[in-house]
Amino acid sequence: MKKKEIRSRCWVEINGVKHFGPGPAELLELISNSGSISKAAKEMGMSYKKAWAMVSNMNARGQKPYVIVQQGGQQGGGAQLTPTGKKVLNSFNQLNKKIQTIIKKESQLLKLI
Amino acid sequence: MKKKEIRSRCWVEINGVKHFGPGPAELLELISNSGSISKAAKEMGMSYKKAWAMVSNMNARGQKPYVIVQQGGQQGGGAQLTPTGKKVLNSFNQLNKKIQTIIKKESQLLKLI
Repeated sequence: MKKKEIRSRCWVEINGVKHFGPGPAELLELISNSGSISKAAKEMGMSYKKAWAMVSNMNARGQKPYVIVQQGGQQGGGAQLTPTGKKVLNSFNQLNKKIQTIIKKESQLLKLI
Repeated sequence: MKKKEIRSRCWVEINGVKHFGPGPAELLELISNSGSISKAAKEMGMSYKKAWAMVSNMNARGQKPYVIVQQGGQQGGGAQLTPTGKKVLNSFNQLNKKIQTIIKKESQLLKLI
């Protein structure tokens, strides 16, 4: 029995350069849950350096920062989403849900394939 | 002025392997317009060998062939879409249009980004 599936991906570009998409969204989600960039990076199987660079890029290129990083402390500081970061993440998740709904309705294509 | 844009991509997998997506759809569209795999390949900047392999894979792995290739003749034969090929292409294009409509409505995300 063949398993057929429609898959999709969406992302935001600023001046033709990828700015936000499934990877940054997952990172924001995990930062929001764990309060830490390093824990979020670990869960994604990504180096801390790479996760930090992603956060730093988002913060620099968005209209407002998406993540606030607290310096210092025994755990090396924590991180949390700003109101803008939360809104961007929610809005992106909503868009993906709507696209999934459209795709689920499109059973016709899979029957033809 | 920053140009912000939401982009998307969707594709169909069979047993976890990409079967149909933007590339094959463009190839079918161009075969349909030109009646020739070699002309379609040229327009896509793709080798004839690669285009032929794409057609051959689609034909072999889909429920029914998407393209009929006519052998021989002075132009080395022609190619045209089967009824299934036409339906798959139309259905895929329709799905993409619906996703584009959703994305256009999602101006909120771009305002936040």
